[in-house]
Amino acid sequence: MGAIDVPADRYWGAQTQRSLIHFSIGDDRMPKRVYHAYGYVKKAAALVNEAAGRLPAWKAAAIVQAAEEAIAGKLDDHFPLYVWQTGSGTQSNMNVNEVLSNRAIQLLGGVLGSKSPVHPNDDVNMGQSSNDSFPTAMHVATVMELDEALMPRVDALAQSIETKSQQWMGVVKTGRTHLQDATPLTVGQEWSGYAVQLREALARIAASKAGVYELAAGGTAVGTGLNAPAGFSKEIAAKIAELTARPFVTAPNKFAAQGSLDAIVAVMAAVRGLSVALMKIANDMRWLASGPRCGLGELILPANEPGSSIMPGKVNPTQCEAMVMVCIQVIGEDNAVAFAGSQGNFELNAMRPIIINNTLHAIRILGDACEKFRLYSVEGTELNLPRIEAMVGQSLMLVTALSPAIGYDKASKIAHLANDEGITLKAAALKSGFVDEKRFDDIVNPANMVGHGVAGA
Amino acid sequence: MGAIDVPADRYWGAQTQRSLIHFSIGDDRMPKRVYHAYGYVKKAAALVNEAAGRLPAWKAAAIVQAAEEAIAGKLDDHFPLYVWQTGSGTQSNMNVNEVLSNRAIQLLGGVLGSKSPVHPNDDVNMGQSSNDSFPTAMHVATVMELDEALMPRVDALAQSIETKSQQWMGVVKTGRTHLQDATPLTVGQEWSGYAVQLREALARIAASKAGVYELAAGGTAVGTGLNAPAGFSKEIAAKIAELTARPFVTAPNKFAAQGSLDAIVAVMAAVRGLSVALMKIANDMRWLASGPRCGLGELILPANEPGSSIMPGKVNPTQCEAMVMVCIQVIGEDNAVAFAGSQGNFELNAMRPIIINNTLHAIRILGDACEKFRLYSVEGTELNLPRIEAMVGQSLMLVTALSPAIGYDKASKIAHLANDEGITLKAAALKSGFVDEKRFDDIVNPANMVGHGVAGA
Amino acid sequence: MGAIDVPADRYWGAQTQRSLIHFSIGDDRMPKRVYHAYGYVKKAAALVNEAAGRLPAWKAAAIVQAAEEAIAGKLDDHFPLYVWQTGSGTQSNMNVNEVLSNRAIQLLGGVLGSKSPVHPNDDVNMGQSSNDSFPTAMHVATVMELDEALMPRVDALAQSIETKSQQWMGVVKTGRTHLQDATPLTVGQEWSGYAVQLREALARIAASKAGVYELAAGGTAVGTGLNAPAGFSKEIAAKIAELTARPFVTAPNKFAAQGSLDAIVAVMAAVRGLSVALMKIANDMRWLASGPRCGLGELILPANEPGSSIMPGKVNPTQCEAMVMVCIQVIGEDNAVAFAGSQGNFELNAMRPIIINNTLHAIRILGDACEKFRLYSVEGTELNLPRIEAMVGQSLMLVTALSPAIGYDKASKIAHLANDEGITLKAAALKSGFVDEKRFDDIVNPANMVGHGVAGA
Amino acid sequence: MGAIDVPADRYWGAQTQRSLIHFSIGDDRMPKRVYHAYGYVKKAAALVNEAAGRLPAWKAAAIVQAAEEAIAGKLDDHFPLYVWQTGSGTQSNMNVNEVLSNRAIQLLGGVLGSKSPVHPNDDVNMGQSSNDSFPTAMHVATVMELDEALMPRVDALAQSIETKSQQWMGVVKTGRTHLQDATPLTVGQEWSGYAVQLREALARIAASKAGVYELAAGGTAVGTGLNAPAGFSKEIAAKIAELTARPFVTAPNKFAAQGSLDAIVAVMAAVRGLSVALMKIANDMRWLASGPRCGLGELILPANEPGSSIMPGKVNPTQCEAMVMVCIQVIGEDNAVAFAGSQGNFELNAMRPIIINNTLHAIRILGDACEKFRLYSVEGTELNLPRIEAMVGQSLMLVTALSPAIGYDKASKIAHLANDEGITLKAAALKSGFVDEKRFDDIVNPANMVGHGVAGA
Repeated sequence: MGAIDVPADRYWGAQTQRSLIHFSIGDDRMPKRVYHAYGYVKKAAALVNEAAGRLPAWKAAAIVQAAEEAIAGKLDDHFPLYVWQTGSGTQSNMNVNEVLSNRAIQLLGGVLGSKSPVHPNDDVNMGQSSNDSFPTAMHVATVMELDEALMPRVDALAQSIETKSQQWMGVVKTGRTHLQDATPLTVGQEWSGYAVQLREALARIAASKAGVYELAAGGTAVGTGLNAPAGFSKEIAAKIAELTARPFVTAPNKFAAQGSLDAIVAVMAAVRGLSVALMKIANDMRWLASGPRCGLGELILPANEPGSSIMPGKVNPTQCEAMVMVCIQVIGEDNAVAFAGSQGNFELNAMRPIIINNTLHAIRILGDACEKFRLYSVEGTELNLPRIEAMVGQSLMLVTALSPAIGYDKASKIAHLANDEGITLKAAALKSGFVDEKRFDDIVNPANMVGHGVAGA
Repeated sequence: MGAIDVPADRYWGAQTQRSLIHFSIGDDRMPKRVYHAYGYVKKAAALVNEAAGRLPAWKAAAIVQAAEEAIAGKLDDHFPLYVWQTGSGTQSNMNVNEVLSNRAIQLLGGVLGSKSPVHPNDDVNMGQSSNDSFPTAMHVATVMELDEALMPRVDALAQSIETKSQQWMGVVKTGRTHLQDATPLTVGQEWSGYAVQLREALARIAASKAGVYELAAGGTAVGTGLNAPAGFSKEIAAKIAELTARPFVTAPNKFAAQGSLDAIVAVMAAVRGLSVALMKIANDMRWLASGPRCGLGELILPANEPGSSIMPGKVNPTQCEAMVMVCIQVIGEDNAVAFAGSQGNFELNAMRPIIINNTLHAIRILGDACEKFRLYSVEGTELNLPRIEAMVGQSLMLVTALSPAIGYDKASKIAHLANDEGITLKAAALKSGFVDEKRFDDIVNPANMVGHGVAGA
Repeated sequence: MGAIDVPADRYWGAQTQRSLIHFSIGDDRMPKRVYHAYGYVKKAAALVNEAAGRLPAWKAAAIVQAAEEAIAGKLDDHFPLYVWQTGSGTQSNMNVNEVLSNRAIQLLGGVLGSKSPVHPNDDVNMGQSSNDSFPTAMHVATVMELDEALMPRVDALAQSIETKSQQWMGVVKTGRTHLQDATPLTVGQEWSGYAVQLREALARIAASKAGVYELAAGGTAVGTGLNAPAGFSKEIAAKIAELTARPFVTAPNKFAAQGSLDAIVAVMAAVRGLSVALMKIANDMRWLASGPRCGLGELILPANEPGSSIMPGKVNPTQCEAMVMVCIQVIGEDNAVAFAGSQGNFELNAMRPIIINNTLHAIRILGDACEKFRLYSVEGTELNLPRIEAMVGQSLMLVTALSPAIGYDKASKIAHLANDEGITLKAAALKSGFVDEKRFDDIVNPANMVGHGVAGA
Repeated sequence: MGAIDVPADRYWGAQTQRSLIHFSIGDDRMPKRVYHAYGYVKKAAALVNEAAGRLPAWKAAAIVQAAEEAIAGKLDDHFPLYVWQTGSGTQSNMNVNEVLSNRAIQLLGGVLGSKSPVHPNDDVNMGQSSNDSFPTAMHVATVMELDEALMPRVDALAQSIETKSQQWMGVVKTGRTHLQDATPLTVGQEWSGYAVQLREALARIAASKAGVYELAAGGTAVGTGLNAPAGFSKEIAAKIAELTARPFVTAPNKFAAQGSLDAIVAVMAAVRGLSVALMKIANDMRWLASGPRCGLGELILPANEPGSSIMPGKVNPTQCEAMVMVCIQVIGEDNAVAFAGSQGNFELNAMRPIIINNTLHAIRILGDACEKFRLYSVEGTELNLPRIEAMVGQSLMLVTALSPAIGYDKASKIAHLANDEGITLKAAALKSGFVDEKRFDDIVNPANMVGHGVAGA
C-alpha cells in the first residue's frame, strides 16, 4: 500500500495515519473513553500473557506501563481517529497497538516505528483480534461511563426531587388530567411520582449492565478463539474485572458476543427509558412554572440568566428546555443504535463505531443534563403558594367527592351548572338541590381528597 | 350533549356511540386483548366490592358473569371503538362499563340502557377511574399477549435453532467478517450464536415484565385514590393476580403509575431488542442461502412457493423477508411508543391508546413471524455441503494460523502473494520461503482452527 | 410443491393459498387500495397488449372487465393476503393474476383454475414482472390515497382555520414564548400561523408527488425490460395516465425505479412533515383550552362527550389528543419506511409491503384525523374573551414597547420591579422614574403592539 | 442575578459566561457555521438600520467590521456556547451581540464591557429578537452548509458513478432480486441506477431549499414585528440575499416562521432521503465486492489499509461501512429533528439548538462521507471480469427468455430440472424436450437479454 509519513511527535503508526487520511469525516472522534477502556484490555492481556510465559516480563512491564498511561488519559493526544471508520473498530485497535508498542519501545530505549522489540500485532495484540477486543473495550467503556457520568447524577437528581417531595407533601394543589382541571393532590405527591419514575429508570439501567459485564475477549477473529491459548478468555475477563473492580466475566458464547451488539442495544434502550421519564418531568416543570402572570404559575424556577434579547425582564425555563432537547437527542441516538444493531452480518456486527459513539454520547449528555437540571433548576425551585391555593379552590372537579354520595349523574349536573353559569361549585350544588350546605362542606374538602401517601387507596 | 341513537342489538351505550362517530379514523380498532384484560379488572373490582359489602351479591354476580363473557371474547362485537380516541382510554373504559352494565341488566331481567339496576359508572366502575383502570388493563393485556403470542414462539424458534446447531456442530465453514472471508468456524457454532441472541433477548423480555406486573388500580382519578375505599389497590391487584394466575401487585406509587407509561415503554424496548436480534439472524440466513448458483449458497431454504411471476423456477427467501419487515415495523412502532411515552403531562399520560395498540401489535406480529419463520424456514433448512466444503478450503484467511509461528508481517505477505497471483495459499506459502510444506500442512488445517465449543479460547 | 386446496367460492389460486398459509402474521392485510391500483395496471397492460396484437381482443376484453371490477372494489374479498409476505409483492401480484384470470375465464365460460383460456402469468401478467408492476401499483395507490383521503381534508382544515383567523384577527391576546408571557399578538395572527403551516405542508406533499408519477412498468424482472416488447413502458404509463386522469409517465431509469423506493420515501417524508405541523397546532389548541378554571383557558373547545368515568362534568380535548397520537404514529411509521427504504439490494428493494402499508396507513389516518379534528374541534372552537382580555393586560412583557424609548436595561429594571413586588407594570414604571404616566400610556398599549397583518415589520 | 467574571481575553460578556456555567453539557458546541451566518444577519441589520438613519454611520461601520470578522471565522474562539442551552438560541444571539458590540467598542477605542458606545441589545440587536434572528441565522447556515459541504460532493460522486456506468455499460452480469439469481443486466445499467438515485435525491434537496430561503427576520419577539420599523423584514432579507448571493426573501407569515421550524424539518427529510439512497448503494458495493474467494466477488474495491489486526492480508470494504454508519446516523438525527420540530408551543419552537445542530451535523458528515467514498472507494473500484463472466453463464434465470416462446409453466419445469439435477440450463432444456438446441441457443443469450439503455422496454 505504499509508504506514508507519520508525525514525529506522535506514537501512532502507519495504520492510524492511513485512517486519518481516508476517514476525515466531520469532527466526530472516537470517544477517549474507548481508549481508556482499551488500556485496561491491553494491560490485562499483557499480564495474562506474561503469567503464562508467552510474553517476557520486561516486555510485559513496558506494555503495562504504556497501557496505564492510556488508562490515565496521558496518551489522549495520540488517539486521533474519527468515529466513521472501519466498522469493526480495527483502526482504533491498531491505533492503540501502535501507540502502546511505540511508547513501550521508547520506554525500553528502542527506535519508534521499528516494531522492535515490541510489535504492535505480535505483542500488544497477542491473543487478540479487533473483533473481540474492540467490543470488550466498548463494554468496559460503557460500564465506566454509566458509573461515572450518569448513574450518580440521576441518583442525586432523584434525591433532590425526593427532598422537595417530602417538603411539599402537605401542599394541596389542583390535579390535572388531559391538561384539564381534575381532583386535587399534593405537590409532594406529584413530585413523588417524578422521583419514582427516575428510581425505576435507574433500576432498569442498572439491570441492563448485566449484558455488558460479559466480554468477548478470547473469541479472536470469528469467535472460535483461534491463536489465543486455551483459558485466555476466562483469564483476561478475570484480570479486567480485577483492574476495574467491576464484575466482568467472559461471555458464554463468543459468536453472539461478536456477531451482535445486543447487550449495548439493551443498555441504550434503558438510557432511552430514562430520557422518556425525564422529558415528562422537565415538561411538567416548565408548564407548572409558566407565566409569570398568564400561565399556570404554580412553580417559580430560578432566574439564572436574562431570557430575551428583546423582552426586558423575561425569565425562561431554560434548564427544562435543555433537558427536553437532550432527551430528544438521546431518543434519536437510540434509534440509530437499534438500527445499527440490526445490521450485523455473520461473525461481525460492523457497526461498532456508530453504536459506541452514540451510546457514550447519550450517557454523557444525559448525565450532565441531570446535574445541571438539578443544580440550576430543581434545587432552586419554589412554590407560588398563593397561586396554588387560589386555584385549588376553583376546580369544578372537587365535585367528584360527591359522586359516592349522590351518584355520578347528579354530580355531573352540578359541575355543568357551575361551568355554564360561571358560579362556584358550592353555589351550583346548593342550587341543584341535590345536597345541602352542611353536607357539601363536609364532603367537598380538598384536604380530605388527597388520600394518604403515594400508594393510592 | 343531546340524545343519540344506539343500535338495538348492541350492549354499548351513548358514550360508545359518540366515540364511534367522533373518532372514525382509519380502521384501527382498540385490540380485543384490551377488553379481555378489562374483563379481569371489572370482575376483580366487583368481587372486591362485593366482599367489602359495597356491592350486593346479586349485582356483583351479574357483573362477574358479564365480565367473564368479556374475558372469553364472547362480547367482542360489542367493543367497536377506534384506537384514535381520548388519550386516557376513557371511551374504551366507558364502552366496557356500558356493555357490562347492560349485559348484567339483561341477565337480571332489566331494561337495556336504563342504567338500572346496574349503573355503568356507579356499579361497574365502582372504586375506579379510567385513569387507573385503563393502565391496569394495559398491563394485564401486555402480560397476556407476551405469554401467549410471543414468548413460547421465541422459545420454540430458539429450540429449533439449537437443534440445528447441535446437528451441524462439526461442519467446518468459512467465517466472514466485514462480508469478507475470515478464519473458519463450524455451522453449528454460527447457529449457536443465533440461539444465544434469542435466549438473551427472551430473558430481557422476561425481565421487562416486572414493571407491568405493577398495577395502577386504586389510584382512581389522579393517583390519590379518591372515592376508592382504603385497601382497594392491594385487594384488586391480589384478585387480578388470582384470576390470571400471574404475580400482579399494586404499584407502590400511583402518581408514577398514572402519570407515565414507563413500564410499557420498557417492555416495548425489550421486544425491539428481540427484533434487532431476529433481523440479524434472518439477514444471515437469506444471505447464506443466496444463489442458487451466483451467491453464497451455503444454505438451502425450503421452497414454499414460486418466487416470481416472470422468472420460472425462482425460489426466494420469503420467510426471511417477512421477518425482516416485521422487525423493521416493530422498531418503528417502538419509536412511536417511546415518543408517546415522553408526552405525558401532570397526572396522566394521555397517549395510552397509541402505546397499547403498538405494543400489542408488535408483540403479536413478532410472535406470529417467529412461528412462521421456524415452521417454514428454519426447520426445513438444509446445508449445501459440497459448496461449504469447496469454499472453506479456498479462504486465504487460513493464513492466520501461521501468524503465531512466523509473525503477522510474514503471514500477511503470503496472503497478498496468493491473492495477487491467484494461487492457493499453500502454493504462496511455499513460494514465500517462510514455511516448508510439512509445517504448512501441520498448521493450516481448518478443522483444527475452529476451537472447542462456543466459548472461544 | 405439491397440491393445495383452494376455496371454491374464491377466484384466487394456489399461489395465493400458499401465501395465506405461510404468512398468516397478525391481522395486517395488504391494503385494498393496492389492488384497486393494480386493477388499473392490469387493465392498461391488457389494452396495450391488445392494441399491439399480442393479446386477442376477446381475451383482452375479459381481462379488462375483470380489472374494472377490481378497480371498483367488487373483488375485494378475493384479495386476502397479509402484508408480511414476500418482499417484492409477488404474492399479491399473483393473487391479482389468479383472480383476474379466473374471473376472465368465468366470463368466458371456462373452468376456474384451468388457467385456460386466460393464463395468469402468460396473459394477465403479459409483459410484466412483479418487480415492475408492484411498484407501479404502489405509486398509483399512493397518488390515489393522497388525492382522495388526505389532501382535500388538509385543505378543508386549513380553510376552516383561515376562517377563524379572519374572524379573530382583531382580538388581542398574550403572546407566549418558552411558555412564558411575551408581547401581545392577535388570536387571528396566531391562527394564521397554523394555516400557513398547513398550506406549506400541503405544498410539500403536492411536490412530493412528482416522484410517484414515475412508473416502473416496462422494467420487468430486473429493469432491462426482458420479455416486454419495445415501447411497452411508455405505452403502459400513458394508458395508466389516461385511465386514472393523472400525469403518470414512465420512469426514466428502471434500475433506480425497481432497486429503490426513494420516491415513496420522499412522499412519506412530506406526510410526516404535515404531522410535525399538525402536532404543534393540536398541542397549542389543547393548551390554550386548558382549564376550565386552572389553566390558560383562552379557547373553549366543543364538548363532544363526557370526559371522565369518575369525574362528573369533565370535558377533555379529545380530538387534539387523537390528532397528537395520529401524528406520533405517522412519525413512527415514517421511521419504518425510511429504514425499509435503505434495505434494498441490487435489482430489488424487497421491503415493498412494509413501505406501502405504512404509507397508505399514514395517509389514511392523517386524512381522517384532519376531518374529525376540523368537524369536532376546530369549527366549534370559541374564544373565552373575558379571560383573554384579562390576561393581556397583566403581561409584564408589555414593557418591551418601552425599550426603544428608554433602552433595554431600564426597561428590564421596570419588569423585574413589577414582578418582585407583584404590582402592575404601570405602577412599576412610574415608581422607577424612567417614564411618566402620559408617556407610559402612549407607548404601552397592547393594541398598538400587534403590528399590521401577518408579515411582521 | 449578581456579578460574574468574564475572561479578559474574550469579547463575550455576562450572558455568555452565565450560559457557559449553567449549560456545560457534554462537549457539543453550537456549530461555528451558525455564528458565521449570524454575522450576515447582524451586518445586514446594521446596514439597514444605518440606511434608515436609526444607527449612525460610524457605529454601523464598526458593527459591520466586527460582523465581517465573524463571517470570516476570525472570532470563532469567542463563540464557545454549548448546543444544550435555551431553546430559542437567545444565548447564542446574546453571545453574538456581546462579541460584536465589544469588538466594535474596541475598534472605536472604547472600554470592553462598557456597552458603550455600542450596546449589545440596543445597537447590535436593533430591530431584532432572538426569536426572529436565530431562525434567520439557522436558515442562512443551512443553505451555506448544503451549498458548500454537501451538494457539490454528491454531484461529484454521482459524476464518478456515471463515468463508471458508461465505462461498464457493455459488461453483462447476473441480476439479483431477493438476493437470488435473476435475469442478466449490465454492470453499467446497475450503476446507472445508483447515479439516478443520487441525482433524484440531490434534486429533492435542492427543492427543499425553497423553504429555508424564507427568513423570519422582522418578526421580532412573537412575529408581530414589535420594535422593528415598518419595512424592516423585507429590507433585511434583501440585504442578506445581497451579501450571501442567495435568493433569500422575507417569510410571508412570521407566526409560522417563528412558531415552527417546518422548513428545516423538510430540508432534513431531504437529506435523510439521500442517506436512504446512499445506504443502498454502499451496501450493494460491499456485497458485490465480498470475498475475495467465498463471496460474490464481482467488484474489487481499493485496498486502502490493512483490514485486520489478526488476519494477515485481509482487506475490508471500510469506506462502504463508514458510509453505511453515516447514513444510519443521519436517519437517527432526522428522527430527532422531526420529534423536536413537533414540540413547538405558541409563538416559538424552543427546540432550535437541537434542530440546527443535527441538521448541520448531518449535512456535514454526509458530505464528507460522499467525498471519501468517491475518492477512496468508487473511483478505484475495478471489475473482476472473469468472475462476472463465469457467473452470468450459470444463472438458471436465463430460462426466463424461454417463457414467451414455450410458456411460463414449461420454462419453470426446465429451471427446476436443472437445479434438482445440478446440470446446466441447456442440458435441462434439451432433456425436457420443450426446445431443441438451435432454438435454445437462439433465445438464451445473455447479451440479448439486457435490453437497450436504462429505460426498460
